[in-house]
Amino acid sequence: MIYIAVLGYGTVGSGVVEVLERNKESIRRKATDEISVKYILDLREFPGDPYEDKLVHDVNLILEDPEVSIVCETMGGVGAAYQFTKLALERGKSVCTSNKELVAAHGPELLALARAHTCNYMFEASVGGGIPIIRPLNSALTAEEIESIEGILNGTTNYILTKMEKEGADFEEMLRRAQEKGYAERNPEADVEGHDACRKLAILSSLMLGKNVSVDKIHTEGISKITAADIRYAKEAGRTIKLLGISRRVGEKVQVMVAPFLVGPDNPLHAVDGVFNAVCVTGNMLGKSMYYGKGAGKLPTASAVVGDVIDCARHLGKVITCFWDEEEADYAGLEEVENRFFLRVKTGAEEAMEALFPQGKIVRFPDRKEDFGYITVSMKEKDFQERCGILGDTVCNTIRVEG
Amino acid sequence: MIYIAVLGYGTVGSGVVEVLERNKESIRRKATDEISVKYILDLREFPGDPYEDKLVHDVNLILEDPEVSIVCETMGGVGAAYQFTKLALERGKSVCTSNKELVAAHGPELLALARAHTCNYMFEASVGGGIPIIRPLNSALTAEEIESIEGILNGTTNYILTKMEKEGADFEEMLRRAQEKGYAERNPEADVEGHDACRKLAILSSLMLGKNVSVDKIHTEGISKITAADIRYAKEAGRTIKLLGISRRVGEKVQVMVAPFLVGPDNPLHAVDGVFNAVCVTGNMLGKSMYYGKGAGKLPTASAVVGDVIDCARHLGKVITCFWDEEEADYAGLEEVENRFFLRVKTGAEEAMEALFPQGKIVRFPDRKEDFGYITVSMKEKDFQERCGILGDTVCNTIRVEG
Repeated sequence: MIYIAVLGYGTVGSGVVEVLERNKESIRRKATDEISVKYILDLREFPGDPYEDKLVHDVNLILEDPEVSIVCETMGGVGAAYQFTKLALERGKSVCTSNKELVAAHGPELLALARAHTCNYMFEASVGGGIPIIRPLNSALTAEEIESIEGILNGTTNYILTKMEKEGADFEEMLRRAQEKGYAERNPEADVEGHDACRKLAILSSLMLGKNVSVDKIHTEGISKITAADIRYAKEAGRTIKLLGISRRVGEKVQVMVAPFLVGPDNPLHAVDGVFNAVCVTGNMLGKSMYYGKGAGKLPTASAVVGDVIDCARHLGKVITCFWDEEEADYAGLEEVENRFFLRVKTGAEEAMEALFPQGKIVRFPDRKEDFGYITVSMKEKDFQERCGILGDTVCNTIRVEG
Repeated sequence: MIYIAVLGYGTVGSGVVEVLERNKESIRRKATDEISVKYILDLREFPGDPYEDKLVHDVNLILEDPEVSIVCETMGGVGAAYQFTKLALERGKSVCTSNKELVAAHGPELLALARAHTCNYMFEASVGGGIPIIRPLNSALTAEEIESIEGILNGTTNYILTKMEKEGADFEEMLRRAQEKGYAERNPEADVEGHDACRKLAILSSLMLGKNVSVDKIHTEGISKITAADIRYAKEAGRTIKLLGISRRVGEKVQVMVAPFLVGPDNPLHAVDGVFNAVCVTGNMLGKSMYYGKGAGKLPTASAVVGDVIDCARHLGKVITCFWDEEEADYAGLEEVENRFFLRVKTGAEEAMEALFPQGKIVRFPDRKEDFGYITVSMKEKDFQERCGILGDTVCNTIRVEG
């Protein structure tokens, strides 16, 4: 029997307990032993809950119990979760988590602590919910030099953008409806301003490089400025707008950004709609491979945490290889990045556009007199920004073009 | 230093050597030791080849060298490859292979032999080339009960079908052009009649169940009867034709088949075009996840073999868990499977069709007088076949409809 503890009995924590219960038989077989929840830590009471007798309020009961070999940290945040994770690892207890904020902020430190105490810190659930993406990077694509990672890493924003495209609605309206359906939080900033995607990109980029990529080094833009008109122009140009996290090796450096992009049909991310997430990895031998699925939700996320628990159970007393050093990555600025760009521009600026951005392509609708769309040829970010400055408020919006 | 041997210096074997050379530094770091090719076994001579000095013709040199701890079997076939694999495993040497024919035919026996000698038999490259799909099933989706696997498992047929759709050409012409481009073999039967996809489905289904699924129990149809007209009707109905391998749990039994299907845009496999492969896995907690990439080719396949070598290097003297028993799976017949069906039928049979298959949908083109398309409502395979029998040669072709 392998005893585990669950820290935090919220959505994911209760999902972990549910997955362990519902797939009990096959999990026992795959873990080669039965996995039993001995404690559930939460500050709240859950009267009448079938696991009420496992509930404790003091983490020390768990930390001091030598029978507990694996801890699931499903609390979230970087306060108590950070402290409890360190205390557990120091006692040789493996920790499996869905807490992307903590992993992005302290991943290499916690991995080193786990190694030092011959246990494991596992975080498959922190990126892409139940989609296996950490394992492909850590243990499958090991013969590859990963050249880039490009992903739709946030389901809320992808849902909003997909709905805006399908229904021609504006951002504010779709956000409201996503909130009503429970696909967006009441305080949606972490999702819509790209911070959630940024944390996930920091984790993926760090695993790609083996060095640390910090959240505050990632250029991050959200989707709140995207309008129905932008999406309509993009569609007319054969493209769709997606919030992408992109991490690219440039020599010894790395370029990292989260921003909306116009994505064409040749990119496998083009067809990834609604609440789905997908991560596209380009390796120097394999080329592109893509991992796709529901990036959030109670049971998908919990399933990934339990998958990590099973791996820890198979590797008790052994360290599972994961390269993510504390050494900070060397960042390349965005100024030199070359992209095509989409601009929505006020009518009348046609000549100025063609002078500043020669050989671009105009997209126009007979029923829209106030503005037009324009797609430039490939150019450097710094040149683009400089020329946009000249146009001033004639430019209504600008979005990068992928590929 | 970890010494390995490569059996078979053909496309994949020479790719293995190339991947090890080109990504030497990062592979050394990930394997936590240098991996060195000590022998290459081939019956042929390769005068002037940079690895000429490693070339041997006698497998016993490899088998009897205690320094060799990992063997890459990239010979193919089930003759010598089978024999050499057994001999290597019996000596405690792990074997990594791309040989789907051998894995499908003798997987559980070779896995048991590896376990008995505390080494590993690894075959990530046998399905989907470089796309990680074996590891997601074996070590990531372990908290799931996998309910079904559905995949585009053969790049040659997907290339032909995609081209037929894009260019309106017939099967024979596109096959000829695929052969000219090197995407199809001179003897294309294994690909176009579905045997290659069948072997891969046998491997995936066995891992899904933990029991053995035999190639000869899989109902297998190829694509050679698909015409440009079928594809045109499918497209008009908003669907595309794909050769799918499908494996589905039905209670304690499993339904397995390889056949062309009409696939709609809601299925993520719909957008998988050209030489790309994709595998869609449905788990009871996670729902659908999909794994996508190039399913063949020298370097992608070799990259997967080398990924396995790295995993073996990390686990020398340890057994990596893989559930695939010799016990045969319990098969459910196809008769009870419910699908919708597409039929292409000679003009004049409209009334008969509506009598035999009520509530179906007719698809018609003004410029095609000789036949029409018809999509039935969902019905059992046995009822469908029975009613088709009544229509006799009025029916030009029938294809199942997915979803």
